[in-house]
Order: sequence, then C-alpha cells, then structure tokens
Amino acid sequence: MTGVHPAWLPAEAFRAVGSRRVAVHGDGLLVDTVRAEVAAAGSSSSSPHDLVLSIGSSGSLGDEGFALSRADGVTTVVANAPAGLLYGFFHVVRLGEAAFGADRPVEVHRPALRRRIVDHWDNVDLHPAIGQVERGYAGGSLFWERGALRVDLSRVRDYARLLAACGINAVAVNNVNVHRSEAHLLTDRLGEVAAIAAELRPYGIRTHLSVNFASPILLGGLTTADPLDPAVRRWWAATTRQVYETIPDFGGYVVKADSEGQPGPFAYGRSHADGANMLADALAPHGGVVHWRAFVYNHRQDWRDRSTDRARAAYDHFAPLDGQFRDNAILQVKHGPMDFQTREPVSPVIAAMPGTRLAVELQATQEYTGQQRHVCYLAPMWSEVLRFRPNGDGRPAVATLAQTGGLVAVSNAGDDRFWTGHPLAQANLYAFGRLAWAPDADPPAILDEWIGLTFPDAPPQLRQTLHAMMDDSWRTYERYTAPLGVGFMVRPGHHYGPDVDGYEYTPWGTYHFADRDGVGVDRTRATGTGFTGQYPQPWADVYESLDTCPDELLLFFHHVPYGHVLHNGSTVIQHIYDTHFAGADEAARMRDLWSSVGHLVGSDVDARVRERLDEQVRSAAEWRDQINTYFYRKSGVPDVKGRRIY
Amino acid sequence: MTGVHPAWLPAEAFRAVGSRRVAVHGDGLLVDTVRAEVAAAGSSSSSPHDLVLSIGSSGSLGDEGFALSRADGVTTVVANAPAGLLYGFFHVVRLGEAAFGADRPVEVHRPALRRRIVDHWDNVDLHPAIGQVERGYAGGSLFWERGALRVDLSRVRDYARLLAACGINAVAVNNVNVHRSEAHLLTDRLGEVAAIAAELRPYGIRTHLSVNFASPILLGGLTTADPLDPAVRRWWAATTRQVYETIPDFGGYVVKADSEGQPGPFAYGRSHADGANMLADALAPHGGVVHWRAFVYNHRQDWRDRSTDRARAAYDHFAPLDGQFRDNAILQVKHGPMDFQTREPVSPVIAAMPGTRLAVELQATQEYTGQQRHVCYLAPMWSEVLRFRPNGDGRPAVATLAQTGGLVAVSNAGDDRFWTGHPLAQANLYAFGRLAWAPDADPPAILDEWIGLTFPDAPPQLRQTLHAMMDDSWRTYERYTAPLGVGFMVRPGHHYGPDVDGYEYTPWGTYHFADRDGVGVDRTRATGTGFTGQYPQPWADVYESLDTCPDELLLFFHHVPYGHVLHNGSTVIQHIYDTHFAGADEAARMRDLWSSVGHLVGSDVDARVRERLDEQVRSAAEWRDQINTYFYRKSGVPDVKGRRIY
Repeated sequence: MTGVHPAWLPAEAFRAVGSRRVAVHGDGLLVDTVRAEVAAAGSSSSSPHDLVLSIGSSGSLGDEGFALSRADGVTTVVANAPAGLLYGFFHVVRLGEAAFGADRPVEVHRPALRRRIVDHWDNVDLHPAIGQVERGYAGGSLFWERGALRVDLSRVRDYARLLAACGINAVAVNNVNVHRSEAHLLTDRLGEVAAIAAELRPYGIRTHLSVNFASPILLGGLTTADPLDPAVRRWWAATTRQVYETIPDFGGYVVKADSEGQPGPFAYGRSHADGANMLADALAPHGGVVHWRAFVYNHRQDWRDRSTDRARAAYDHFAPLDGQFRDNAILQVKHGPMDFQTREPVSPVIAAMPGTRLAVELQATQEYTGQQRHVCYLAPMWSEVLRFRPNGDGRPAVATLAQTGGLVAVSNAGDDRFWTGHPLAQANLYAFGRLAWAPDADPPAILDEWIGLTFPDAPPQLRQTLHAMMDDSWRTYERYTAPLGVGFMVRPGHHYGPDVDGYEYTPWGTYHFADRDGVGVDRTRATGTGFTGQYPQPWADVYESLDTCPDELLLFFHHVPYGHVLHNGSTVIQHIYDTHFAGADEAARMRDLWSSVGHLVGSDVDARVRERLDEQVRSAAEWRDQINTYFYRKSGVPDVKGRRIY
Repeated sequence: MTGVHPAWLPAEAFRAVGSRRVAVHGDGLLVDTVRAEVAAAGSSSSSPHDLVLSIGSSGSLGDEGFALSRADGVTTVVANAPAGLLYGFFHVVRLGEAAFGADRPVEVHRPALRRRIVDHWDNVDLHPAIGQVERGYAGGSLFWERGALRVDLSRVRDYARLLAACGINAVAVNNVNVHRSEAHLLTDRLGEVAAIAAELRPYGIRTHLSVNFASPILLGGLTTADPLDPAVRRWWAATTRQVYETIPDFGGYVVKADSEGQPGPFAYGRSHADGANMLADALAPHGGVVHWRAFVYNHRQDWRDRSTDRARAAYDHFAPLDGQFRDNAILQVKHGPMDFQTREPVSPVIAAMPGTRLAVELQATQEYTGQQRHVCYLAPMWSEVLRFRPNGDGRPAVATLAQTGGLVAVSNAGDDRFWTGHPLAQANLYAFGRLAWAPDADPPAILDEWIGLTFPDAPPQLRQTLHAMMDDSWRTYERYTAPLGVGFMVRPGHHYGPDVDGYEYTPWGTYHFADRDGVGVDRTRATGTGFTGQYPQPWADVYESLDTCPDELLLFFHHVPYGHVLHNGSTVIQHIYDTHFAGADEAARMRDLWSSVGHLVGSDVDARVRERLDEQVRSAAEWRDQINTYFYRKSGVPDVKGRRIY
C-alpha cells in the first residue's frame, strides 16, 4: 500500500536475515509464508546456510513454540508445527544481527498464553453516532467501509503480518455491540468474514466473530432467543455448522449480552451460564470457543442511590456461576471492575472463578487514555495487571490465571496511514502481543524491541529519547488527569478531555462524590458498598484499610477529607495540585524532547507526532487547570506552593 | 391536511361568523382571501348583512389597521388597505358571538409594531448534527425536507393562516446559520423561496431570507466579500435585483455575521455598519430591509479569563456604531445580553442605539425553556421585556424602542401534527403575534383568547385549569432550573436537562463561578466586568448595588456568598433549595391538574400532553435534585427544612 507506514516491519528490519543464506524445511501454509518472507527479505537459499528453519518433532515445543540456537556459524530454528516456525522466524528478525553473532545455546520459546487476541470494535455500517469504529482513533476500519467489505484487503494481510510478528494469533473482526447489519455477518454475509479470514490465515491468525444473542430472532425468524429452547439451540447448532463449513479454522464467537442495551439471557429468566453454554455447545463439535464478556452492569442507575456500586456488578453476576460454564466457554473479564480507566484495581472476578476459563480484556485503543492524541505507553499498566497476585504472594499471578482463556486487547488499529493515529501508539499494539506471549516481559525492554524494529537505524539519541518520553508516559497521563484512582472525570459521550462532574449526575454508575469536605467512593465493607469484600485476602483487608490502601487507588476505595495524609506524606488536595502541575509539565517536556529527535524519523512521522504532541500539551494544561480549579473551588484549600489556580 | 391539528383556527372558531350574512367589499389578493375565509366559514352573502367588511378611505388606519363597530344589528369592519381587512376579519373571529351582540362604538385597532416576524432556523439539508431545524422541537421543517423543498406546501398555507390570525406579517424561511446548500436559496435555488412566498402571500406575510455574508465568494465566484469592494457591491445589487424580479414583495435579508463561525465584515477590517449598509444599499431600491443580528461575541473564550464578559459583547461591538446604519438596516438584538436564558436582564444594546432602527428578537422555540417537553408559557417573560423602560420611569418602553425595527421570534413550529410538539406550546406562537401587535396586552388575557379559539367548546373548568397550569409556568420553570438569573446550567450541546458545571470550563463565556463560598458573576463596575455600566440610569445603579438589584437577577450581576440575604428574606442557598423543591412540586401539580381535564380536549391532544407532562415531572425532579445536591455539596449548608438532598 503506497504511503502506509510499515510500523514495526520496515524492510530494514529484515536486513540481517536478508543478507543470509537461509533454508526453510517443512510443509504447509504457514511454512510457505515463512518461505515467502525469507524470499521477500532478499535471502538466498544457496548452501552452506546461515539460517535453517525447520519443522521437526524433537522436544515439546507445542503448536506455537520454537527452539533457537546457533553453532558452527549456523543459526537454527526448530518448531514442531508451522506456527512455531513463523514465530521463530520473526524472533530472528527481531534479533537482527544478534541472531548471527556468537554461538547460542538452545533457547526454547513458547507462548505463556495460548489465546492472544485482538478484538475490533469495527462496525460494518458507518454508524451515525458511533462511527465506523467504536472508540476508534485511527481512521476507518481495516475491514469495512460504509456498509460493505473493503474491496482491497491488502492492508488486512499487512495487518496480519504485523500481528503475527508480535505474537497475536486471533482477531475478532466486528464490534461487540452487534448492530443490525453486523448481525448478518453470521449468516448471509458470512462470505465477508471468510474473505477476511483468508487474509489472516497465512499468518496463523484465526478469525472470531461477535454475534448478537438475539440472532435466532433477528436472522432465524424464531420468536425467541431463549438459550434453553430446543429450536434456538438447533438454530445455533446449524448456523455454527455452516460457519465452519465456510471457515474451517474459525475461532469462535464473542458475545456482549445483557449489557448497555445488548440482548441476553436475562430476558428469558436464564443465567449467563445458560447463554454461554448454549453457544459453547454449538461450537464444541468444531473446536470453537465462545468468549462471553463479563461486562454486565446496570447502566440506568439512579445517581442518588449510593448503595448500588457498578464496580460490584461483574462479580455479583458471575461469581455465583463459577463451575457452571462449559470447557469451551471463556469468560472474558475487563482487567478492572469499571471500564478501562487510567487506574483501576484488578477485577475481583479474576480470582473468583477458579472453575471457569478466564480471558482478561485490555484496551489498546486509548478510549480513556488520550485517544491516540496523547503519548501513553500502556505496557506498564498491563504489566502491573498481569503480575498482580489476587490471592497474595506465592499464589498465581493474573497472567497465570488467564492461561485458561487468554489475553484480549481491543485493537487500536485502523486504516490510518500510521495504523494507530499516533505513530507512537503502535508500541501499544506491539507490546500487547509481546505481553500475551510473555507476560513477565519488561515493558521498557518491549519498547526497546519496538524501537529497534520500527526505527532500525535509530541512533542512540532517538532510542534514549523515546524511552524518556514513553517509559513513564502512562503515569504522566495519570498525573494530569483523574486523581488517585477516582476515574471518569471526562467529557460524557466521547470521553476526551476533562469534565469533573460530567458523569456525576448520570445513570452510568461512575461517580466521585466530591463535596466541599472530601472526595472518593466508599467501597469498604465497614461503611461503604462492600466491594472490598469481593477480593480474597490479603487484598480484601489491604483495600479496606486507609492504612494499607495504596495511594494510587485511595479514591477508588475510600471517601476521604481533602486533608487526608497519603503514604507519600502529602495531603490529598496538595497531591492533586502537585501531580497536575507535574503531569502537565511532563507533557510539555515530552514535546521538547521530541523536537530534538523528530528529524531522525522521517518527516511524515515527525509531522504527525508533533501535531499530536501539541494537542497533548494543550490538553494536559486544560486537565491541570480544570481539575485544580474544580477542587480548589470546592475545598477552598490553597496550593502550598502558591501556583496559579483559577 | 389529514390529522394535522387546527391549532387556534378550528372550524368551530368560525361558528359565529359562519352563521351570519356577510358582505366583503374591496379588491385585491388579501380581500379575496377574506372572501374565501368567509365562504369557508359557511356564511351567506344575502342581504341584509350581519357583518360588513370593506375597504374605505376614512380615517388613518394605515396599511394594517382596521376599525370595528356595531350598530343597527350590523357589525362593520373598515380598513384602508387589504391587510387591515384581513386582520379585522380575524379579530371578528376571535370575538366570536361577542362581535354580534350589543352595539359597539368604533374601536380602532392598529399594530403597535409594523414588523412582526418569525424567523425559522430551518435547514434545507438534514444536517447530521443539527438536524432539519436547528433548535427545533416540533419535527421537521414546514418548508424543506432532506435537501429539497417540500412537494406539498399546503401546510405552509395553513401556517400562514395561523400566523395572520395572530398578527404576524413576515417570515424568514431559513436558518441564520447559512450552510452551503442554504446559501444557494439566494440565487439558483431562489425558485424554492418564491414557491414558499406564494403560499404566504395570500395571508399578508412577506418572505425574508437568511443570507451568507460570504455569498459573493460562495455563489458569485469573487475572491472577496469585502463590503466596500465595488465588485462585491455590484454583485449584491444585481443579485438583489433578481430576487425582487422573482419575488416582488420580498421582505429582505437576515444576517448572522462574525458570529459562531459565520463569515462577516471583520475578515476585511470592516465594521458591522459597513456590512449591513452594503446589503441595505442593495435592498433600498426595492423597499427591502436587512435584519443584521447583534449576536456577536467571542465563542472561543478562555474560561480562565474572568475579565472577558460575553454579556458585554453586543454593546461593545454595536453601541459605537450608532448612527452609522442606513435607514433600511435594522439591528436585530436578542432581548437579553446572553442567549435566551430563562431569566436575563434586558439587553443594554436596546437603549444604546437611539440613532439606529432596532428589532428585538425573542425565542418562541424553547431551546432553554424546556424544549416543548415542558409547559412554559413565555408571554409573561416577553411582556416583562416589552414593558421594561431602559431609561427609567416615564421614558420609552422596549416595545416603543422596537417600533423602529419590529419584534422577531424564532419560530417553535414544525411539521409536527400539533405544529409545536407540545400542544400547549402553540400558545407561545400565538402570544408572540398578539404581543407584536399589542405589546401592552395582558399575557393571561392573550392566553384566554388562545384557549377560546383553540378549544371553542371549552367548559369553564378547562379554561380555569389551563390558566392554573400555564399563567405562571415560566416562573415555575425558572424555579426548578437555574437560580437567580445565573443561567446556562444545562447539558452542553443539546441544552436539555441540568448540568451545573456543563459550561463552566468551556470556551462559551457562560460561567457561574460557584465555589464553596458563593456563586454568581460579578458584573459590577466597582469590582467586576463593568457590564452594569452599559445600562443608562437608573438601571446602571440599580443593578450595581446589592441593595437594589432585583433578586431574580442577583447572580447575573453579582457574586455573593451562599449566606447572602435576599430581599425576600431568604438566604441564597435556602432560596435555591426552596425554589427547587417548590418548582418540582408545581410541575407535579400541573400533571395532576391536567389529569382532571384531559378528556375535554380530544384523545390525541390529551395523549400528547400527558406524555409531555410525564417528562416534565421527571425532568423537574432531576433538576431539583441535581441543583440542590450540587449546591449542598459545595456549600455544606443544610436545608433548614430538612428535606432530602443527595
């Protein structure tokens, strides 16, 4: 595609491989892909070889693992299956010249998580309010344009390649809010899904589809979608059989049910286990799975009612169902109890379902984290989530618990020429794939990989500057936006920019309860909504107590006076002022840093990044002033440093 | 039109005339209209006559006045000109049987204001964000539908009849925000305007057109719209000549320039007098006028900047230009200095332009007054405005000052079957026309007229109930919404429902500055923006002083502590609580009142009114709780009556 940025796979990233003599041994579509990649890199196949990639049966590398070694001047990648060879090849690309230097003992690489998925919230129709991509900040959809499948799907193939190169192996191709046209992808428009699957398949990526729970009514002419109704079950079984006849390697369904207006089993007095299991049963004969989202809450809450707590909803709905789900039903849980805020605790659902397969859902698209106009490298947040141990030290981390179901990210990619709007937001998509493969990877190291691939000729100055800008950018964003875990102080609807009271008197369950004396949500068992009791120990007590609750989550769990002293020694109000001044200053510093390296990346990338940084600096100052002014007007407490508050 | 509500001209309203023998003497289109109305009413023309309507030269009744008398069993209407006969006829209809009772000495009726105009903010195209009618709450446009003139214009004729029956004599047919398609109405789409004019003409209504100041560029292929450029002036002169060739009785242009993104003379370093005079010069040979709107302000203000005051803007822009406008240029001034809030002081511009023809603009469409979902009879507000004496007792009232230019209302009508969405909102359109004719008319009396026409068989109970619901409904709306003249505590964008901080940190210049200690905008000369100084005495001092500033405008002019004691003896904070509880209770009482009379008006009207009252009661409670909670959280002052605040 002319003019499309190569992201982390520019031709130069293949230089090391391209200058070598390479042999590829094995058969199958993915091996052919490796062979084609090798050829495209410019490698020759003359003996003796510098790099040998071969399918072999030795060891237990699984479907996707590979073994890498180097001896006697030959680098060797062995895999048990074609996908492993593909991942091994991209690993060699990532290593570059380092793959062809000193001898290497055998290293075995296997993905920690089997399911590494990006979900697209893409609409087929250009929705008048929501647009082509719900919460999309990177242009249109890679798949659909104004009601129809794109004629030219070459960018889908390129996208598949980018995903495979960072380890992603599945894509859900349409929005979890399944509108009328989109519902038909399951049946009469299935050919469009098959066409996308054909582009994804050579890179080992399986296709998933979001389906409407009411499909038997919408598409099948039935009068009910009751999951226990035999006709409904037959309809799903037959429909699913047709899906697999068309797309034999189809991955499965994604379902948002009984949530924000989507239909679901509640209408029939059935449980979400009933709903998920019906689909699981339809998928089981074909090896498919259903990803059933746990994002169920009352979005028509009365703001006057302080006893209802949206944070509790997913646990209250799903924890009682643990053990009732089929083995091919995966409960897909957002990482936090609310909705992808800049800072949330880990969802208590993740620890509450030992008898259920769980996938953890992250959001690469920056709905609440700057909408790809702000630099906000999310890997540190995701890493914190994945390393969190819901049952305490010595017990499994979230990454381990998610092995049963996988890791999912809402994609941040679109038909934008830089794929992600902000060129630096590519790093989030890349890092998601790498963390899904290796959840214990270090976020700065992943960023370093991304820099190395994306800017292959980057001088040290560029590399250092990108680290200086991005490593801590999530915390910078946190500092100038909503304080201390309180969240949601954004403009309603589009969710960009500050509006402290924007959601305070709405039905969405997203409140901060700021008054002249204090701020925060009392979710304690002692005096609040009892949400802390959804956590196992030690967290149930850690979060319950002001003495132990981490500062950054204080207002998520507690309503405190502005004079409350944090563990960091500052009062809440002074902390608000300090972090907001500091965060906005850091945004301005990012722009300064970039100005000295922008010329190193090409004028197109430079221009786009500059434009975005200008907006980030403006927006950060707006956040600083609105948040500080709001809390100053409410608390009456002056800034001890006497800085300008309006 | 099948199913369209007859508003204030049901067949029954013509019963008294219809049962009489009527003679109509005179010639011309409007006399023919009277003749047709008489015939449609079912009257006979056999002698002797009960009603004689004739054009005569006696007296000085002007173009639109008429003389009514009754003697010897004959009711006589005499007019000097056809329009007068038409108004006289509708006056007889309004009187009903009372026109045919006891003898009446000669009464002369002449409109106080020559120009009585409704402006339609109708778009030709269905605008994706703004819709077919900007700030329209009554369905689509009567004129246009999705980019084209309506094929069936019979409702335009019916609309003209309704307007004539209450005294309106001009209509501006398109939105003051003139988008691309709408600009073409001036030239290649002028035929559509002519078609509308043909429907309006038989009822004595002249057609006006909103034009884009940049038309010479948009339509004429010029490179400038500089009002002093000879080519631009020639273009406007030639274009206007063509307009009059097509529509000989064309009324003139309406212009929103240099406002909210519309182009204007500032781009060329010219004044608004330069801009208006150029159009006036083009119109003068044909007897047309330009209505030049004074709604010019900076809509990209920095909320941090307390020295800029949007309320000052119109005066600051226009007062220095007094005396510079042509005689056929009319400065059209919103009644208040901000933007049609529920309560504003009268605009100081109205007193500041003795050497300029002025029209006062009101808003019948209820943008900020309940959007035709709430009962809010606006005549009492308009009456207060019209009776206000900007220069003090004994000096001219606003109604007198507006005689030079007229009275304008933004229409509340659309293709809704009840014309105005809420059936009771018809009363606002009717009352506007009547106040433009007779600004000293009593609002309850006008409402009584409207009830009598609209519900000709209304038993006393219905009449009394409608008065109980509507007479004070504007003040009820004021009570449960934004307090003490502060305004703008609405949801941004659509302006419906409460959002206290919704505009507080925006660029729109609409702030309340509430903090934990107090609320309001200091517009005094002593310590504030100096806006009070734009008023002549006595108001400059009345508004300046807390001792004399009327309670209902307190927060418009002053920032005061919550404990400030009002003239009514209450504190500001307690007044907020009291009025909001009272207002919401009154809304609930309206619904109760209606429930006992709804069956008297027909099931279609009853159903629509009930549906709207349900929403009003819900919305009023929401306003009450959000406003009270906001100020309680901020002030910390409890309600002395201990009522529930959240």
